[in-house]
Amino acid sequence: MEKKLKERLSSIRPIKEEFLLQAQARLDRLTKPLGSLGQLEEIARRYVAIVENLNPRVDKKIIYTFAGDHGVVAEGVSAYPKEVTPQMVYNFVRRGAGINVLARHAGAEVVVVDIGVDHDFQPVEGLMIRKVARGTGNMALGPAMSRGQALQAVFVGLEMADHAREQNADLVGTGDMGIGNTTPSSAILSTLTGLPVSQVTHRGTGIDDATLGQKIQTIEKAITRNHPDPKDPLDVLAKVGGFEIAGIAGLIIGCAFHRIPVVVDGFISTAGAMIAVSLNPEIKGYLFAAHQSVEVGHRFMWEYIGQKPILNLSLRLGEGTGAALAMFIIEAAVKVLNEMATFTEAGVAQANK
Amino acid sequence: MEKKLKERLSSIRPIKEEFLLQAQARLDRLTKPLGSLGQLEEIARRYVAIVENLNPRVDKKIIYTFAGDHGVVAEGVSAYPKEVTPQMVYNFVRRGAGINVLARHAGAEVVVVDIGVDHDFQPVEGLMIRKVARGTGNMALGPAMSRGQALQAVFVGLEMADHAREQNADLVGTGDMGIGNTTPSSAILSTLTGLPVSQVTHRGTGIDDATLGQKIQTIEKAITRNHPDPKDPLDVLAKVGGFEIAGIAGLIIGCAFHRIPVVVDGFISTAGAMIAVSLNPEIKGYLFAAHQSVEVGHRFMWEYIGQKPILNLSLRLGEGTGAALAMFIIEAAVKVLNEMATFTEAGVAQANK
Repeated sequence: MEKKLKERLSSIRPIKEEFLLQAQARLDRLTKPLGSLGQLEEIARRYVAIVENLNPRVDKKIIYTFAGDHGVVAEGVSAYPKEVTPQMVYNFVRRGAGINVLARHAGAEVVVVDIGVDHDFQPVEGLMIRKVARGTGNMALGPAMSRGQALQAVFVGLEMADHAREQNADLVGTGDMGIGNTTPSSAILSTLTGLPVSQVTHRGTGIDDATLGQKIQTIEKAITRNHPDPKDPLDVLAKVGGFEIAGIAGLIIGCAFHRIPVVVDGFISTAGAMIAVSLNPEIKGYLFAAHQSVEVGHRFMWEYIGQKPILNLSLRLGEGTGAALAMFIIEAAVKVLNEMATFTEAGVAQANK
Repeated sequence: MEKKLKERLSSIRPIKEEFLLQAQARLDRLTKPLGSLGQLEEIARRYVAIVENLNPRVDKKIIYTFAGDHGVVAEGVSAYPKEVTPQMVYNFVRRGAGINVLARHAGAEVVVVDIGVDHDFQPVEGLMIRKVARGTGNMALGPAMSRGQALQAVFVGLEMADHAREQNADLVGTGDMGIGNTTPSSAILSTLTGLPVSQVTHRGTGIDDATLGQKIQTIEKAITRNHPDPKDPLDVLAKVGGFEIAGIAGLIIGCAFHRIPVVVDGFISTAGAMIAVSLNPEIKGYLFAAHQSVEVGHRFMWEYIGQKPILNLSLRLGEGTGAALAMFIIEAAVKVLNEMATFTEAGVAQANK
């Protein structure tokens, strides 16, 4: 299994400079001052380079929201009881959650993936049941997952990227649900960057000062006890990660493999993106940073990956909500490239040289 | 005419606190951690308070793009020849410009208003001909407009707000076109805030260092020569403003009067908003700040007005392009309020107290 993952990772190529240049040349002929559409131009260029098509479309959009539970919730790190994870999965499939509203607004479908919820779901439209286990182990006491479980969860993500390819998805978004999952996300961030836990740990869904102190101690304990090896991203993922984070990492790897642009949501999704990018740095070119969350550690994640967030709306909901909003901006950038008139077409004079 | 404007201004009331509170109470019952949708929640709350309706809709959206020429272009302050103003107006009505592409993407109509272009247009669908004059005077040599012309241009904006009301517009956006118009915008900003011209003047559509120096000197000269009175916003507008800026100010005043939420675009539009807000500070509550432009002075404008930009995409195109993109986010915020399930409806447990 690990060999198969390595094969897939090694077949991911850097995005091609020639497409970036050709897209920019087109942008520079459009009726606007050079560079005046700022980040939209960067997005359009890179979209072209990912799909290797100078007139790309953004029609079919799918957001994969991975749900999993976390043994570490037993340490009292969250404001919400863990029963909320399955309750929110039901909310997703009934289309009442934030991600449903925002995905609908952006014209995106939502696929919910039970990758490790501590609850047995009946099959229902819009829910993929790919449970690796009923929640991770408590990382304060031992590894969250075995290496085999982590790999299995990454493969669920790869399978979803294959699903996106089969569905002819033009653009994919990541999303998460899992009470307690900012805790493993901060643990991954601290382990991969070496930043102190206290600097990258925040209030998640809204904990008080005492609980924040408890959360920081718990993460420090988990890292001390499990010795995740920052040179071995799968080891980090298994020991202090989570099923949904692994699924998101797999989805991102698979999208890069299939050359499908992937919009990475907030703090938890970006933890998954850090695992993916640390397994193959070229993956950076295939992903878009949806937004800058209010979680204090999030900006360090984007710095590590090297992408600039599209939105900064003080969101901290997860589920893929930021990805849904960013999809609209990405689609706008692609439409600029395809639909704006050139100076010649419009008979507009260019800047004085 | 000035008396009629004062009547309209004095009938604008502060948005009502009770609607803000009721909207927040609804947001707090939705299946998400408290406050976790950040700026979307602020937008939703204020939208409710503006329209005084707890279940508002964002269906009809119109962007008014005001076009005018500037006598000050004779001083060599722009990278583009002034013929580009009418050429771009033709591009707008043929739907080939950036604003057309982005408004279409956001589901908004574009109404182009010739408020002072130095060119005679034939009547055409989508173009309102409301020319006050064929361009402003060169403010380096004398006032850009007479007080009467400035008022007339403000009334064109008020008329467009009446038009929006007649069209049952739910949301209005502002836009501008006018070669040279960052120059009067910086002049207004410097005059109203007292900030030095050199600190609030930038490269507009893309001028070099020498031209930037010339632009700063020109603005300083215009302010010295005309003595715009910062206590009299109409005096500032007339002496160092522009027709499109006056039209935008009038549109914003008229939207506040009709309680139509209005999305203010970039640097030039925000100069118009500064005039409107300095005439009646309550207007602040009725406007949304579309984005933070790369023009260095723009952030001082938002600080003066007291609104936080929704987007920060390094845009500097104008036309209403940032407003079009921000409309999508505003609509998203309103949909969250209307469409998300509550904890009770979804059977989801709330946070531990």
